[in-house]
Amino acid sequence: MKARIVVTLKNGVLDPQGKAIEAALKSFGIEDVSGVRQGKVFDLEVASENREQAEATLKAACEKLLANTVVENYTVEIA
Amino acid sequence: MKARIVVTLKNGVLDPQGKAIEAALKSFGIEDVSGVRQGKVFDLEVASENREQAEATLKAACEKLLANTVVENYTVEIA
Repeated sequence: MKARIVVTLKNGVLDPQGKAIEAALKSFGIEDVSGVRQGKVFDLEVASENREQAEATLKAACEKLLANTVVENYTVEIA
Repeated sequence: MKARIVVTLKNGVLDPQGKAIEAALKSFGIEDVSGVRQGKVFDLEVASENREQAEATLKAACEKLLANTVVENYTVEIA
């Protein structure tokens, strides 16, 4: 099964990278973009027998490695 | 308008980071995940009068800064 995991910063967590991107966009003359927040996306294959097992595997992958659950949220989409 | 930009590597482009993540997942005992490819996601606000103008602004942001269009694809989703 194909799946996509999106990891984003929790609300309230400062995103200096997002601020830097916003400033860079302005320097390129792109003025009307604000509140930029950067995250990560993982596209992958999961070899599970059923959807529930795939979700459990991907949840474990996020909790153990892909997301820092103290400051990040993650969403799992299974195609 | 809220928007999300997803930047991913083009097919055929090697993803060493994805390979490293795959190996790390295996070391955590998560065996049935393969073909990991990492990308970037940007959540932002765009202050445009209409949808077409917002799309044009976001396309320019991708082409100028957010995506390396030689090796990356980008998708723009406007909420």
